[in-house]
Amino acid sequence: MSAPTSASTSTSTYGPTDEPAYEPTDRSVPTRGRPRASYDRALVHAILDEAYVCHLGFVRDGAPVVLPTLYGRVGERLYVHGSTGSRPLRMAGEQPGRRSEQDTAAPGLPVCLTVTHVDGLVLARSAFHHSVNYRSVVVHGTAHQVTDPEEKRTALDALVDHVVPGRSYDSRPANAKELAATAVLRLDLAEVSAKVRTGGVNEEPEDLALPHWAGVIPLVTRYGTAVPDEHLDPSVALPDYLAAL
Amino acid sequence: MSAPTSASTSTSTYGPTDEPAYEPTDRSVPTRGRPRASYDRALVHAILDEAYVCHLGFVRDGAPVVLPTLYGRVGERLYVHGSTGSRPLRMAGEQPGRRSEQDTAAPGLPVCLTVTHVDGLVLARSAFHHSVNYRSVVVHGTAHQVTDPEEKRTALDALVDHVVPGRSYDSRPANAKELAATAVLRLDLAEVSAKVRTGGVNEEPEDLALPHWAGVIPLVTRYGTAVPDEHLDPSVALPDYLAAL
Repeated sequence: MSAPTSASTSTSTYGPTDEPAYEPTDRSVPTRGRPRASYDRALVHAILDEAYVCHLGFVRDGAPVVLPTLYGRVGERLYVHGSTGSRPLRMAGEQPGRRSEQDTAAPGLPVCLTVTHVDGLVLARSAFHHSVNYRSVVVHGTAHQVTDPEEKRTALDALVDHVVPGRSYDSRPANAKELAATAVLRLDLAEVSAKVRTGGVNEEPEDLALPHWAGVIPLVTRYGTAVPDEHLDPSVALPDYLAAL
Repeated sequence: MSAPTSASTSTSTYGPTDEPAYEPTDRSVPTRGRPRASYDRALVHAILDEAYVCHLGFVRDGAPVVLPTLYGRVGERLYVHGSTGSRPLRMAGEQPGRRSEQDTAAPGLPVCLTVTHVDGLVLARSAFHHSVNYRSVVVHGTAHQVTDPEEKRTALDALVDHVVPGRSYDSRPANAKELAATAVLRLDLAEVSAKVRTGGVNEEPEDLALPHWAGVIPLVTRYGTAVPDEHLDPSVALPDYLAAL
């Protein structure tokens, strides 16, 4: 969050793991709020796996474009998908420099993929120190179209399983026509950083006696009651993995 | 959402208003999912006002950057803020073409500001038709640094009131030092579109008899119990406008 807050508690609830961390780079080190930054792999994975939608940024005609889209993760690879006619998918597949039949490698699309959870409203006595608790991941890199059929199927399963884990086993897999209509982009998790704000308010010492309520109001995302499709055969019960939500 | 879903119910729950709609432009008309697009002003405002964090995209060294940040709205203007040292704030204030004392207009920073709510998981019988219900707004434009002190104060109040409406009246306003440390960017709501998916699953007719549960699982964001600051004077009760959350 680029809010003008001072240093605060950061990744205390997410300790480092034994996995090697991501290597910080010039653009994955934030200019502000460095104490909140983390390159911990398990933390990054957890933030990515909990969200439903990422915000995918790319450059079109020199200007930035940011679109929300579903995604999936397989190890250190993220996948987004879309119609073969959608803008970023088309752009990633364009091969302006292609000169010969041998030169088939698409150049890819420079992207920035960002995922954010807002966990709480931080209400300080001073307007200046208002903030939110959040967990975010920013991934820089170049997205490439997935052309290998097996990787494409794996990616599409990951996209479905990202919505509900295990769901790909309980749905009809894509057929040839659907596969042909769907483009998939791969983005490797290499230049990655997380940023986390947790904890309470920061406050100037001289403000502590001000008569304003201060504290944190948590935000929690919950599942509502499942709404069956109107055409659902009444004999098809809500499966356990959905009821458990 | 750039998921490869077919046409669906779109803005049915958000009827048009008497306010003039935003004028569609080349880049605010989506290449996919046009039936879900809307330029309705009241719908756009409602989506913007309900979210806490936007994803702000800009171009740095030719590559896209997408950062989550707080924002506020005053009529047809959005404001984001940050430390005067933060990247987008610095970039919006840079004046590479400045030649004379008279030529003081900063060029501004081309941005794309996107806000998304995920309202439900759409579980189809086919993997292909999995989706989410969502409401998103995408704003294209050029962000400019706010230099007028009065507009800056208005913007900062809007940022605080965006977290909790009315909160700016119940907190200490920014002092001169805090104002000097905070940069504010303005983005006019001109090139704007909303996109909404509501309703149930889309399904190929031949899939309706498949033995997979299908339907929508709503997602709801709720407020948790307020956690008072450890230094809070016990005589300061939770105010009504916070208890009402």
